[in-house]
Amino acid sequence: MTAPDPRAPADLSVNQMTVRQLALPELVTACAELGVRGVGLWREPVRAYGVEAAAALVRAAGLGVTTLCRGGFLTATDPAERARALADNREAVDEAAALGTATLVLVSGGLPPGDRDLAAARARVADALAELAPYAADRGVRLAIEPLHPMYAADRCVVSTLDQALDLAEPFPAGQVGVCVDTYHVWWDDRAPAAVARAGDTGRLHAFQLADWTTPLPHGVLTGRGQLGDGAVDLRHWRRLMAAAGYTGPVEVELFNEELWARDGREVLAETVDRYLAHARTPAR
Amino acid sequence: MTAPDPRAPADLSVNQMTVRQLALPELVTACAELGVRGVGLWREPVRAYGVEAAAALVRAAGLGVTTLCRGGFLTATDPAERARALADNREAVDEAAALGTATLVLVSGGLPPGDRDLAAARARVADALAELAPYAADRGVRLAIEPLHPMYAADRCVVSTLDQALDLAEPFPAGQVGVCVDTYHVWWDDRAPAAVARAGDTGRLHAFQLADWTTPLPHGVLTGRGQLGDGAVDLRHWRRLMAAAGYTGPVEVELFNEELWARDGREVLAETVDRYLAHARTPAR
Repeated sequence: MTAPDPRAPADLSVNQMTVRQLALPELVTACAELGVRGVGLWREPVRAYGVEAAAALVRAAGLGVTTLCRGGFLTATDPAERARALADNREAVDEAAALGTATLVLVSGGLPPGDRDLAAARARVADALAELAPYAADRGVRLAIEPLHPMYAADRCVVSTLDQALDLAEPFPAGQVGVCVDTYHVWWDDRAPAAVARAGDTGRLHAFQLADWTTPLPHGVLTGRGQLGDGAVDLRHWRRLMAAAGYTGPVEVELFNEELWARDGREVLAETVDRYLAHARTPAR
Repeated sequence: MTAPDPRAPADLSVNQMTVRQLALPELVTACAELGVRGVGLWREPVRAYGVEAAAALVRAAGLGVTTLCRGGFLTATDPAERARALADNREAVDEAAALGTATLVLVSGGLPPGDRDLAAARARVADALAELAPYAADRGVRLAIEPLHPMYAADRCVVSTLDQALDLAEPFPAGQVGVCVDTYHVWWDDRAPAAVARAGDTGRLHAFQLADWTTPLPHGVLTGRGQLGDGAVDLRHWRRLMAAAGYTGPVEVELFNEELWARDGREVLAETVDRYLAHARTPAR
């Protein structure tokens, strides 16, 4: 009897949100059937399932947890709110450690209501990192700052470019704080390729996520991340940039897409593997 | 009898799209009543009214035309389409000259369908500028490249930052090609203040537009530009940046907003003047 012939390449990871219609055990089973060896997990469904139970489930299936999404939201000015955010991020670190992933993705948070000072908000993120990075390092977890597309600067993430994320990361050891490169957020930025190289040179490429850019954007612009190949992003170009910068880690497909969520999750997962092969695979070196 | 006491400050201009529910004669009358001395016009309504007739109307009212919006859409790869775009832009230059405005705003255009090469599209814009800039200069019109927010990079404007716009402008004399700074498009960019200074140093600040950033963004993200004071943009900060860079021209309020369009246009115009005074006026120097 021969081993199954998995369709999925070894570096592919699928973020849980891509097929959030699948419960965690269904996701694990579907990944095993397709040969997907890595998953990115989200805190809310993991906590709902139970962190230890989720860790045991993925471990038993031989699945690697490539990232935990997400910590962050560190821009509050109110001291009590800020303390709550820091405590919540420490919990996120603990959860990442329990799941056996090395990487906690951080989304910085937006402007507090009525606030218009982006620079000050970014400075508060820097202060919070100083508190969180050593805590995470002690538990074997590194923080990956994810710049989100500038269209989220007001309400979700004041860190809009890879250069900003690197500026925040560089005061810390590379093993403690790096960046998460998501094509959906950085594809438009002509300075991002140089920033990828800069991150590679300093060992800060901690995570890599793929999504395509499709238009028109939906109301609220949260749930329109396109299936690979459906949009404007040259995914192979970004894979080559990451490879040239020395990145050899997993490539996580993270789609937030109402249309994909409305379909059969196993079908979407299989499609995602096919699209990855068709649009994002780079020749072996 | 004393002169009327106009509420609007001398530097305020109102872009026609802000109150597109007003026909051109109504707009002109309403501006006169409120003391608004400048308008930014759009090609479509101007052509519908008749370019010469529109020019006569605003001239008779003593209104200055601060910009004509807009030329551009210069990214086509198909030769026939490209030739049509260039011809259309020459017409736009002629219309700007007829209206007596010095400034034609250019929006570059997005990626052609199925195309994923932003750098090549930007290069085609550069090539088109080389054809258009001398034509415009001969007619007393300067081109103002407007970077649009990165959320439009795929389908509307491959020029996403002020630095990109300046890179495109700088091969040409400053009197021929400069930039249009619109707070809606650049407010998130930590490099934009330096780019404003760079543009000022080289005499390329050709237009300045204000809109506020409000969330959630609407479907398609075209018609959610916030009324001044309703959003996340520190408008006075941008006015100070422009002033520090030597800009002394008009300040044009350009809102695309379904809610404002659904209201009485004269009321919206009056509100816009009030909002400008409350949120965007800087102390006289």
